[in-house]
Amino acid sequence: MPHEWLVSTCFERIITLSAEQRLAELRLELPPAPKAIGVYRPLVVCGNLAFTSGHGPLLPDGTLITGVVGREATKEDGYRAARQTGLAILATLRAQLGSLDRVRRLIKLLGMVQCDPNFDQHPAVINGCSELFAQVFGEEAGIGARSAVGMNALPIGMMVEIEAIFEIA
Amino acid sequence: MPHEWLVSTCFERIITLSAEQRLAELRLELPPAPKAIGVYRPLVVCGNLAFTSGHGPLLPDGTLITGVVGREATKEDGYRAARQTGLAILATLRAQLGSLDRVRRLIKLLGMVQCDPNFDQHPAVINGCSELFAQVFGEEAGIGARSAVGMNALPIGMMVEIEAIFEIA
Amino acid sequence: MPHEWLVSTCFERIITLSAEQRLAELRLELPPAPKAIGVYRPLVVCGNLAFTSGHGPLLPDGTLITGVVGREATKEDGYRAARQTGLAILATLRAQLGSLDRVRRLIKLLGMVQCDPNFDQHPAVINGCSELFAQVFGEEAGIGARSAVGMNALPIGMMVEIEAIFEIA
Repeated sequence: MPHEWLVSTCFERIITLSAEQRLAELRLELPPAPKAIGVYRPLVVCGNLAFTSGHGPLLPDGTLITGVVGREATKEDGYRAARQTGLAILATLRAQLGSLDRVRRLIKLLGMVQCDPNFDQHPAVINGCSELFAQVFGEEAGIGARSAVGMNALPIGMMVEIEAIFEIA
Repeated sequence: MPHEWLVSTCFERIITLSAEQRLAELRLELPPAPKAIGVYRPLVVCGNLAFTSGHGPLLPDGTLITGVVGREATKEDGYRAARQTGLAILATLRAQLGSLDRVRRLIKLLGMVQCDPNFDQHPAVINGCSELFAQVFGEEAGIGARSAVGMNALPIGMMVEIEAIFEIA
Repeated sequence: MPHEWLVSTCFERIITLSAEQRLAELRLELPPAPKAIGVYRPLVVCGNLAFTSGHGPLLPDGTLITGVVGREATKEDGYRAARQTGLAILATLRAQLGSLDRVRRLIKLLGMVQCDPNFDQHPAVINGCSELFAQVFGEEAGIGARSAVGMNALPIGMMVEIEAIFEIA
């Protein structure tokens, strides 16, 4: 069996998997859908646009990853926190829309990193979320516009906060 | 007259009041609609979406509430500043749309708190704006998605800056 | 020939020029369209809305203007950085849409200034971008809603980061 054929078959298989199927293949565990810690909704749908609230790096046990990147936390810690924040956004999407398969594509992320003023690698941190979305929704639908910036303080000391706009079916 | 009946009647009355009527009932004074302090418009409407510029805690005398939350200002000061910022947003909506009754619902807020790096209760501050909108537009229409974050500096030293997206009729 | 007539004729000429023609008249040099420094797209179009990623003050030689406004950089430095960031956004719009003439109008800017905590003139800095857009698209189409805020840190130490939403044809 030629190697090219195998690759091609795998590729076909990947691009025809739905977001929910990809999530299962990746064996990713979503945290519980985050509850609002204020007077807001986790997600608002208007037409075919879904606006998420700012999400933090919520762990399955309900705690948040905290810390300042460039001080007690490294860039790699930040990357993991951004990926975990992406999982929390997925949990909200599934809880609010019924299934991740209603997501057509990512429009935009605003990725905010709680960091030391001397830290300057925010894109490398927010990639933790962006690469997750590319894996789950595919590169065509899962990569959108983005801003990645540094913040002097985030709620409860969370390491990363990300808000997103998706197009949904 | 049964107590339940009274409650029900009050409830009916509340939910059938318009935003302008609720504002009058709450005896809230709006500041003058803020003027741009740069090259921008206070509000831009595109289809059924209305995007506001960042607003600050403008007082009826035209001055802004300034200060750093977690340093010379408390969380409660921040809450009052966020509520005042909400009143300024309402003033812009009324001036630009003719009436608050053209607002169908809040889609999203980005709430920014000028704060000390050690302050971590931004949601409790931005609730000042969110609770105002819930009062004026009702809980169904007045509570949207939201991010609440900390900033190292805001224009003219204002304590809070909030931008909003509304759905309008 | 009366002076008023000349003014009127000039005015007519200005308002009938397209964005691409205005850019040529202003003899503005666009930097190369910026490449993503992370997992994102420079621009995403959804219906008639175009969402740009956060852009920095990219120079024609491919480097970015860096520095902290209110410390080693002045307000005027910040203004020039914001104008350069606007040129980078124009480069992305032309590269992604084929022509600036597909832009109907600016909806909103989020202008972020890397600054000292004591700096408080962010609107004067972000005007560098806003005045450029007013020149290129005209005052009616080129001035939108806006937030201008201070950040403790931006990627690669860039002085300004701006994201924009445009309405396109």
